[in-house]
Amino acid sequence: MNASYINPFVESTVNVLATMTGVTPQRGKLFVKQGISPTFDISAIIGIAGDVHGSVVISFPREVVLKLVSAFIGEQKNAIDEDVQDAVGEFVNMITGGAKKNLSAMGVRFKLSIPSVIVGRGHTISRPRNVPCIVLPFAIEGVGKFAVEVAIKELV
Amino acid sequence: MNASYINPFVESTVNVLATMTGVTPQRGKLFVKQGISPTFDISAIIGIAGDVHGSVVISFPREVVLKLVSAFIGEQKNAIDEDVQDAVGEFVNMITGGAKKNLSAMGVRFKLSIPSVIVGRGHTISRPRNVPCIVLPFAIEGVGKFAVEVAIKELV
Repeated sequence: MNASYINPFVESTVNVLATMTGVTPQRGKLFVKQGISPTFDISAIIGIAGDVHGSVVISFPREVVLKLVSAFIGEQKNAIDEDVQDAVGEFVNMITGGAKKNLSAMGVRFKLSIPSVIVGRGHTISRPRNVPCIVLPFAIEGVGKFAVEVAIKELV
Repeated sequence: MNASYINPFVESTVNVLATMTGVTPQRGKLFVKQGISPTFDISAIIGIAGDVHGSVVISFPREVVLKLVSAFIGEQKNAIDEDVQDAVGEFVNMITGGAKKNLSAMGVRFKLSIPSVIVGRGHTISRPRNVPCIVLPFAIEGVGKFAVEVAIKELV
């Protein structure tokens, strides 16, 4: 995967979370995802298709997503209900939409699928082995961690 | 969702399974997915983006996927390992690719994201509430059940 594809996702994640929830996540050291490893408790996936194709995942532990979504919608959430799931789908939609703008300016054009939201403790998400996946770990002080995973493949 | 979008997915599911695994699934009565309900043990999702956008999910119980993938790859599989996950991703890719051809002939053009494969007992998959999702239940005699979920939204 072209390394220049990654930074737009980092910037967009920080912008979206800061705008929507009022907190600014700190980026950790990115790494290449190897094999199949568990994600957190709730994940949203969005597909991208165009000049390149791929997928973007955002995954949160339960307690982190409840804090962030409560801040986002202005209502205390204590369970992962439909509102929380919709909000997480909207996060991945906005993050990928933000990255799309910068990538388009670099000449990489694609469209977005609708987001899907997966809930299940210990669920795993994998992709075809020939598509590299970069994990962007984030931490929010006093709240916890979450991760964004970006997998993009050039069409041959 | 336009009802004519559905039949290409039914036909393609039957074709792909018959070609790849030698079994012919029987289609059950399709229904609109309401609220958040569990899928089976392993699911693959692929996004579509173009004239319309949406997502397609195929979901299998553990014992069904092991039988089908064993037939597909010609090797007995007793665990949901990377080979099984890759095969399920390939199923959803081929099913959606087959439906894409027929939909394209109807003037509905889109591209595919890469597939993502989710493993986790009792995991749920939801979509934004404003996107209708049709469930296509299938049964294979002597093997078991599986489901395909199609969610497509016209762009506004």
